Amino acid sequence: MFFHKQELQYNSVPDHPDAVYARKLQEVLGGQYGEITVAMQYSFQAWNIHIPGKYKDLLYGIAAEEFGHIEMLAKMIAQLLEKSPLGITDEDVQSDPAVAAVVGGTDLQHAIVSGAGARPVDSMGNPWSGSYVTASGNLLADFTSNANAEMQGRLQVARLYHMTDDTGVRDLLSFLLARDTMHQNQWIAAARELQEEGAEQLPVPSNFPRSKEHTPVSHQYINFSDGQDAAKGSWAEGPTPDGHGEFTYLDGPDTSAPMPAPTHPDSRLFGTTELPNAAEKIAGTVQDKLHKE
Amino acid sequence: MFFHKQELQYNSVPDHPDAVYARKLQEVLGGQYGEITVAMQYSFQAWNIHIPGKYKDLLYGIAAEEFGHIEMLAKMIAQLLEKSPLGITDEDVQSDPAVAAVVGGTDLQHAIVSGAGARPVDSMGNPWSGSYVTASGNLLADFTSNANAEMQGRLQVARLYHMTDDTGVRDLLSFLLARDTMHQNQWIAAARELQEEGAEQLPVPSNFPRSKEHTPVSHQYINFSDGQDAAKGSWAEGPTPDGHGEFTYLDGPDTSAPMPAPTHPDSRLFGTTELPNAAEKIAGTVQDKLHKE
Amino acid sequence: MFFHKQELQYNSVPDHPDAVYARKLQEVLGGQYGEITVAMQYSFQAWNIHIPGKYKDLLYGIAAEEFGHIEMLAKMIAQLLEKSPLGITDEDVQSDPAVAAVVGGTDLQHAIVSGAGARPVDSMGNPWSGSYVTASGNLLADFTSNANAEMQGRLQVARLYHMTDDTGVRDLLSFLLARDTMHQNQWIAAARELQEEGAEQLPVPSNFPRSKEHTPVSHQYINFSDGQDAAKGSWAEGPTPDGHGEFTYLDGPDTSAPMPAPTHPDSRLFGTTELPNAAEKIAGTVQDKLHKE
Amino acid sequence: MFFHKQELQYNSVPDHPDAVYARKLQEVLGGQYGEITVAMQYSFQAWNIHIPGKYKDLLYGIAAEEFGHIEMLAKMIAQLLEKSPLGITDEDVQSDPAVAAVVGGTDLQHAIVSGAGARPVDSMGNPWSGSYVTASGNLLADFTSNANAEMQGRLQVARLYHMTDDTGVRDLLSFLLARDTMHQNQWIAAARELQEEGAEQLPVPSNFPRSKEHTPVSHQYINFSDGQDAAKGSWAEGPTPDGHGEFTYLDGPDTSAPMPAPTHPDSRLFGTTELPNAAEKIAGTVQDKLHKE
Amino acid sequence: MFFHKQELQYNSVPDHPDAVYARKLQEVLGGQYGEITVAMQYSFQAWNIHIPGKYKDLLYGIAAEEFGHIEMLAKMIAQLLEKSPLGITDEDVQSDPAVAAVVGGTDLQHAIVSGAGARPVDSMGNPWSGSYVTASGNLLADFTSNANAEMQGRLQVARLYHMTDDTGVRDLLSFLLARDTMHQNQWIAAARELQEEGAEQLPVPSNFPRSKEHTPVSHQYINFSDGQDAAKGSWAEGPTPDGHGEFTYLDGPDTSAPMPAPTHPDSRLFGTTELPNAAEKIAGTVQDKLHKE
Amino acid sequence: MFFHKQELQYNSVPDHPDAVYARKLQEVLGGQYGEITVAMQYSFQAWNIHIPGKYKDLLYGIAAEEFGHIEMLAKMIAQLLEKSPLGITDEDVQSDPAVAAVVGGTDLQHAIVSGAGARPVDSMGNPWSGSYVTASGNLLADFTSNANAEMQGRLQVARLYHMTDDTGVRDLLSFLLARDTMHQNQWIAAARELQEEGAEQLPVPSNFPRSKEHTPVSHQYINFSDGQDAAKGSWAEGPTPDGHGEFTYLDGPDTSAPMPAPTHPDSRLFGTTELPNAAEKIAGTVQDKLHKE
Repeated sequence: MFFHKQELQYNSVPDHPDAVYARKLQEVLGGQYGEITVAMQYSFQAWNIHIPGKYKDLLYGIAAEEFGHIEMLAKMIAQLLEKSPLGITDEDVQSDPAVAAVVGGTDLQHAIVSGAGARPVDSMGNPWSGSYVTASGNLLADFTSNANAEMQGRLQVARLYHMTDDTGVRDLLSFLLARDTMHQNQWIAAARELQEEGAEQLPVPSNFPRSKEHTPVSHQYINFSDGQDAAKGSWAEGPTPDGHGEFTYLDGPDTSAPMPAPTHPDSRLFGTTELPNAAEKIAGTVQDKLHKE
Repeated sequence: MFFHKQELQYNSVPDHPDAVYARKLQEVLGGQYGEITVAMQYSFQAWNIHIPGKYKDLLYGIAAEEFGHIEMLAKMIAQLLEKSPLGITDEDVQSDPAVAAVVGGTDLQHAIVSGAGARPVDSMGNPWSGSYVTASGNLLADFTSNANAEMQGRLQVARLYHMTDDTGVRDLLSFLLARDTMHQNQWIAAARELQEEGAEQLPVPSNFPRSKEHTPVSHQYINFSDGQDAAKGSWAEGPTPDGHGEFTYLDGPDTSAPMPAPTHPDSRLFGTTELPNAAEKIAGTVQDKLHKE
Repeated sequence: MFFHKQELQYNSVPDHPDAVYARKLQEVLGGQYGEITVAMQYSFQAWNIHIPGKYKDLLYGIAAEEFGHIEMLAKMIAQLLEKSPLGITDEDVQSDPAVAAVVGGTDLQHAIVSGAGARPVDSMGNPWSGSYVTASGNLLADFTSNANAEMQGRLQVARLYHMTDDTGVRDLLSFLLARDTMHQNQWIAAARELQEEGAEQLPVPSNFPRSKEHTPVSHQYINFSDGQDAAKGSWAEGPTPDGHGEFTYLDGPDTSAPMPAPTHPDSRLFGTTELPNAAEKIAGTVQDKLHKE
Repeated sequence: MFFHKQELQYNSVPDHPDAVYARKLQEVLGGQYGEITVAMQYSFQAWNIHIPGKYKDLLYGIAAEEFGHIEMLAKMIAQLLEKSPLGITDEDVQSDPAVAAVVGGTDLQHAIVSGAGARPVDSMGNPWSGSYVTASGNLLADFTSNANAEMQGRLQVARLYHMTDDTGVRDLLSFLLARDTMHQNQWIAAARELQEEGAEQLPVPSNFPRSKEHTPVSHQYINFSDGQDAAKGSWAEGPTPDGHGEFTYLDGPDTSAPMPAPTHPDSRLFGTTELPNAAEKIAGTVQDKLHKE
Repeated sequence: MFFHKQELQYNSVPDHPDAVYARKLQEVLGGQYGEITVAMQYSFQAWNIHIPGKYKDLLYGIAAEEFGHIEMLAKMIAQLLEKSPLGITDEDVQSDPAVAAVVGGTDLQHAIVSGAGARPVDSMGNPWSGSYVTASGNLLADFTSNANAEMQGRLQVARLYHMTDDTGVRDLLSFLLARDTMHQNQWIAAARELQEEGAEQLPVPSNFPRSKEHTPVSHQYINFSDGQDAAKGSWAEGPTPDGHGEFTYLDGPDTSAPMPAPTHPDSRLFGTTELPNAAEKIAGTVQDKLHKE
Repeated sequence: MFFHKQELQYNSVPDHPDAVYARKLQEVLGGQYGEITVAMQYSFQAWNIHIPGKYKDLLYGIAAEEFGHIEMLAKMIAQLLEKSPLGITDEDVQSDPAVAAVVGGTDLQHAIVSGAGARPVDSMGNPWSGSYVTASGNLLADFTSNANAEMQGRLQVARLYHMTDDTGVRDLLSFLLARDTMHQNQWIAAARELQEEGAEQLPVPSNFPRSKEHTPVSHQYINFSDGQDAAKGSWAEGPTPDGHGEFTYLDGPDTSAPMPAPTHPDSRLFGTTELPNAAEKIAGTVQDKLHKE
């Protein structure tokens, strides 16, 4: 069960209206790596988890915090829009290039659809999608996904920080940056702990039998481009992170298999299934098949 | 530039037709973590990269390999579909429950739309989307995203391995599993190397000034659920992976900010902006504003 | 802020595994009128609201309940999937038509992607979309949207009730049906109250000046099909619900405007902008324009 | 069957070109509550209807009118774009900030893709989606959905009215506002008539047996947030609109069920299914299972 | 304006219920090349057209017919669903593998969402999208798009014809096949006429000045794969269809340009913009920039 | 297999930064008819092909070239963004209307999400979709689709040519225009060759038995609008392109079928299935049915 309290975790009041910036903030509310994504992702991971205890509580504990972050951004966006020019004709202000420029850069649906309210979309107006959520049931894979989400999210907040001078907005972002710092550290710590405890190992999934894997290429870098510098990386020689072998470097594939022959499905799918010079055969074959009908 | 060779990196011929399995394989071709995603993701990261040398060559080198993996899966899917029942009425076979069951589990567009060919969709028929691609320009964030993609991808291939007994299909999957093992190891190695060389650090982005972050909550676990076990994890005490502090544990937030007051945007957006008991005021206010028009 | 408690509002344990039914339940979790939609819709309406008091508290109070309903369905789905055949090859069971039929009707991503866990998608596998959310800032419009969502939602749950004999599932659905009954009643009551208090009236938005509306057709039924029975409805004569007039019935439009002439945009958009018999003129016109470049 | 006449229902000619406004108008053509949505929604409701007579004729009669409204908006948009600057370089005009502002606010695909023509998209460029359509077969639910669509639609047109001073555009909008007034009134009248005639009642669906519903919570407001004002509404006491009982108010849930235990699906789905301290068991269990293969 | 008549252009009554086939028919109603697509595509081309006369009338005339085809398919689908098992539990029928197979192959939303009615989706449940529509304003390009749509559409109907034995369904399909034959012929004839009249030529757009095109590669086949047989085609030698030259064949590119150097955007976008061995410089550069803030 | 070479086919370096133009170029990279579409479309057609030889080699040979075109555009976009104002606050430049206008017209995710890099989206920010790809297995249909894609693509590039004065960008576009000229010619030549060789004929699919088509309307223009000029076209009289008959013109349909009666599905789908005046019967019918449960 979820309970709501009509307070925020931190200040979320801007100094000034700014509809263009409101649109930009939509990215970290409703974008691929916005707060809706992490709130939903941690929730689904918690609901689908297969083990009790600390990992489960971790997922529940953070999921609820993230729903509160959606709220903080939504309230901020609504305030940034409150007194902004949103394209409503008023006196001569619309013919002012500066105002026109502002209006051109806004989310037009902020005015037309939500009436100066926040929306579950990203900064380009794409609606949030359930396909942003990753919850595979394998915790090492999922915690890596979570670390990635927090990294991309913090990166976007950091970029947004430098796109405004509003001290109220910056104050909110400084708080979100700090929480993203915590959450990055946390998922990395949790991924490590999973491995140290032996619950999961590299490569994911670690208990798939190695005998069923084509191991000759399990640790081999195969170069399909013509740059040579990849040979200098730690992925080209030395022990592999999974502890199962040594990296090797191969400049292009040394084996290949013939391309399978073209397929010839049932002629009643009406693909182009016969060679041109055998066109006479088409009528016959099809007619035979179709005769039965 | 890309060049194509009409050979495959590895065998891709099934023993038997199996249209239901062909549909399942679409997941790792055109799903969120399928081969189109990694091929496109590594390509965009390469095209957008800001530094020359080994990381750039690594991205180009693997991107091209992944385009070849799309091809191997597409050829396999076309072969699995070639002789399968796809719902075409033939003798009395359609009334056989076993055939009906097979047809019910197929991707219907394999028959109707592509005529027994592979498609750029996932196992539920959702078309592949550009929103699956992550390429932020920050290499530590992106390599973590890549490690996640390879983990989720290998997990899915491992699951698919146990959903067929076809030795040809399993042979292909054993190869893909091995390459996913390599690529997981590789991105983890590359992420480590970036940090060891000082190009990037935790938290991402590492050169955002700490003075602009609300550091009191940068390493604090705040528990928003009622489970207590998260306090036992390595994310609740001890040094943080970013090396900047110590984790602390807080059982619920200890500070809060008041919920901002409701916003009152321009009345010509026709939101419900007045209290019910002040309804008389609506006419007046709006009339004033509208009078000008 | 949101807080989570690791309990459910009501029982959510099935008697038996049933992966096909798990897929069907996804509709009321992640479909257009599923629990994610109402939870998000009421939240955004609350965050965007323009007036304090009872309507605001109503929105916050129900939004949090709905997040708990997502959870109840997600837990049920995971349990229905737990022991189900999901296409994993095991002994000879896969060749059994009954099992094949089951597997064909499942959400394949339940097995391949989430490893027997719930997902933020509908019963056909479409990911949940932010475009399902309505939050316009006009409370009468939005409460009508809410009533519609609860009606469609309860209708879907009622249909699902008769698609299973599992007493555990039916128990959960009997609870959700009751809550949907409450929420339908509630939004209808709230919409009435808004009107009785004079905060909003029909037609929405009620304070748009009538002088700016083409009122001759504001209450006129105009029939564009050849059926005659629509003339018998209460929308064809008698007072209009908005209290501003009387319905009239017109069997087809009695006025029209000429179709505007085809447009001729800039020739450098390379549309087909000239009449065929004037083809000679094309070269000239374009050449003139292009000459400047 | 549909027939077309090359006339419009009302004037649709602008005074002046205005490409930014053309983009805004796309919202009510191809947005969630635009004319494509209502035309398609009423059509599908008519095609799927289960009863003959006045409701059927009503749906057919209005559906065809709405297709004509799509056309009026499409013609208007094409005319607004006809002479507008669309980013084509011409003399020095592109370096004029006013022109740049205009171009920045346009739908870029109006220039690049449709060559100054209308498109089936909303004001942010999202393509119209079949998921906007509601047609459930239950007429009370669907007429409520229709009333909502007309309310949201009229609200958006009212907002757009104040975003232009063009008398031609305003003339068209005044007509559409009037038709939306009619259609709101009409669906509300039709929903009432359904109930008065006993065809449908509240709650939808009304003939689902009450004995199968968990009635103790069918009329109970349960407060999951900490605001107290919702207790003052007509949804917290007094008779319910469905006529089946009395509203009651409960400040938070008074019952709960334990969270179901984590699920343990088949180990070959490779989720993290074992407790960390039992890691030794993983190898064994999996090996047993896998041994058979 | 559109007018509706409650008759169909042709018979649309099935012999027997068949919910699986109803789902398949959705492809040609609401799929990429279904009837919604062509109805909308021809309408938008008509609304956006730049010239009066026969081409305009052609587009309007066929668009209205296609709306009627949507209707014929929708009525057929509703009838196929009317008496079909849709997963509703009834006696012991659900445990019958044959029934289970049928249910597994249905569009689950036909039962849960539309209550045995047609929907604006394709056979895999993807909602119809406005992105399927092509209307560029250039008639030769658009008529080619129309010819393609009719070809793909007729191909799909032909495949569907062999997926049923129902004489009522086949009767409807035989009519649609004939209309698709007409429409293919018609668009090809119209594309030819455009060229013969000189309104448009190959290549599209034909009045883009050749002097601005890099003509050395305008008629050159450049082979980027290792197959040699493409040299045998009519695209490798002989006159080009546009009449402007002769095809030539080149086995791989003979020129190239260096890959541009990696880009170095503003450091406040926090990409990885510095070489690892210059890590010391990062702090300095950023600090300088950030100092100003 | 695909191999990559770190060179481009042609110059791709702009004179000046231009973030607004970078956004426009996204259309031909990641839009419906952009380079990702043609690269993927030709690849899937090649993988799904049913015949060996020249057509197969043609598809492979061009597919690989198109992947290189994605790369050229991606590199160009990254360079256009490199030094552009992207909304980062710097000195007082943000309050300059000219700069504000520029920022308003950019793809905001270029700054926030990709850090000045290219993205797999179109000019309005819609992610590229697998639904853009056509690969039906019928080569005449698919080559027509390819011709259409190259026509729409070249049209868009031609429009973009006139939206910039940058000589570097224009140089790249002049190259792409030339390749699109070649590819248009090539697909038209290939479609002709298929027909001349008898591999496929009009109408597609040509080997569907004519006896199963309702031939009376196979070559008949039926006019559903009130314009009369369509009768003047080559599609209204004279021989049909498929060589099977003569076009005829009919001014509106001369036959029709009655609209099928409304459907009455199972009452447990809770549609409105009874006439209002028979409301009493509802309870009975449903109760009977439900009694069994």
